[in-house]
Amino acid sequence: MFIIGERINGMFKAVARAIAERDADAIAELARRQVEAGAHALDINTGPTEGDPADVMRWLVETAQDAVDVPMSIDSPKLAVVESGLRAARRPPIINSTTGARDRLDSLLPLAVKYDASIIALTIDERGIPRNADARAEIALTIVAAAMEAGLPTDRLLLDPIVLPVSAAQDQCAAALEAVSVFRTLSDPAPRIIVGLSNVSQGTTHRSLVNRTYLIMGMAKGVDAAILDPNDRELMDAVRTAGILLNQEIYAENYLETMARPVTVAAGR
Amino acid sequence: MFIIGERINGMFKAVARAIAERDADAIAELARRQVEAGAHALDINTGPTEGDPADVMRWLVETAQDAVDVPMSIDSPKLAVVESGLRAARRPPIINSTTGARDRLDSLLPLAVKYDASIIALTIDERGIPRNADARAEIALTIVAAAMEAGLPTDRLLLDPIVLPVSAAQDQCAAALEAVSVFRTLSDPAPRIIVGLSNVSQGTTHRSLVNRTYLIMGMAKGVDAAILDPNDRELMDAVRTAGILLNQEIYAENYLETMARPVTVAAGR
Repeated sequence: MFIIGERINGMFKAVARAIAERDADAIAELARRQVEAGAHALDINTGPTEGDPADVMRWLVETAQDAVDVPMSIDSPKLAVVESGLRAARRPPIINSTTGARDRLDSLLPLAVKYDASIIALTIDERGIPRNADARAEIALTIVAAAMEAGLPTDRLLLDPIVLPVSAAQDQCAAALEAVSVFRTLSDPAPRIIVGLSNVSQGTTHRSLVNRTYLIMGMAKGVDAAILDPNDRELMDAVRTAGILLNQEIYAENYLETMARPVTVAAGR
Repeated sequence: MFIIGERINGMFKAVARAIAERDADAIAELARRQVEAGAHALDINTGPTEGDPADVMRWLVETAQDAVDVPMSIDSPKLAVVESGLRAARRPPIINSTTGARDRLDSLLPLAVKYDASIIALTIDERGIPRNADARAEIALTIVAAAMEAGLPTDRLLLDPIVLPVSAAQDQCAAALEAVSVFRTLSDPAPRIIVGLSNVSQGTTHRSLVNRTYLIMGMAKGVDAAILDPNDRELMDAVRTAGILLNQEIYAENYLETMARPVTVAAGR
């Protein structure tokens, strides 16, 4: 499982404050804590910042990179902000995200190619959120075809089946899981599949339980990657256990304690 | 999910003692605690008892039935012991278990038909434990055909993909999960699929975590039933959450507290 840490997001109050005060230590600490907990990449989202969002994105990416040596996932709906993050990235980054809408694909896929980036593609389009697995697969096919046309290698495309809150759209949770199985049949090798996990538990009482249960079921279906909170220890323990049981990681009695973590940047400490 | 409680088994010391002393209260308490925790049926296994095992089976079944009003799963390798349990059962029982071996099918399927019982069928045969999902499916097909021939309705057959300990046969955990997907394609409607869960975590440090992670992945693949410890609260919470996320149970904010439990027998208290 490829884990993208979700905590550097201006929607969180502490991050908004750190951005407003340009508190590099606070951002560095968030970056380190996530990577030490098992994140392989970090999502960077400015949130509704007051300053120039492109400049804030650049600062966040540079600050996080000074602390940890993992790829950055540049998360913004605005093209100029995305490109600012891509330019600042020292390792091949991830674009979060395009949709299946034509204008988004046309502007974002060339950026992914230009900056050697992977790209997350939400299986929604101009018509909004698809109602079932087949509708998701139809959009996924459009995306896969557009990515090939743009010259993006398949392994740099991450399809997202759109995870909705169980509290608001219960049937869509099962539909997204079903979509994962279908996505895997769309190309050979199968496209990579990612979920934006925390959405599933919005508005629920037992958020961590709902998150980890959903992700594990997704892993059984073929999810390869997730954007999540790596500092949720129970979630990460469940992910590691699922990786063992799916024979993707080697079993050892003390696997929870010893499973390899990515390395933070010593110089950044 | 159909849950069969595993706690009334003479392999457990407290149960062996209760059997030796014919301590009906201890057995009744075990029965009630499991049903109150969410078991829909109870597995009954005499273990290596000193007395006549057929008589012990009869006593265990009658004692448990005096306490709770759920079906009994008659768990023994010995035909006479199985039939003793079936005769004592007041509700349509479950036979645990046949294999795909010809002699087992020939003796146990007619018993299932005669006693209106469901039957668990392990996908092993004379050749031992199959090496992969396809070998399991081959045996499953033999079993499904034999059940049809014997006149057993499909919904009374529960196929078991054989869960092995991750500590001893890690690749077989993934193979059994894969087999679940294949089993579902073997008949229409799909055969029911059960796992003997606790085996997966034998010899591991984090047994409950391994158990619940594996069962949830199984549910995503199509497992309908499990033999497990219903008094493992984290396991049952995970099962309930997975049922919600698979859209098999109706979501409510307090679903963990309110999800329906089967009813114990008032007279037995």
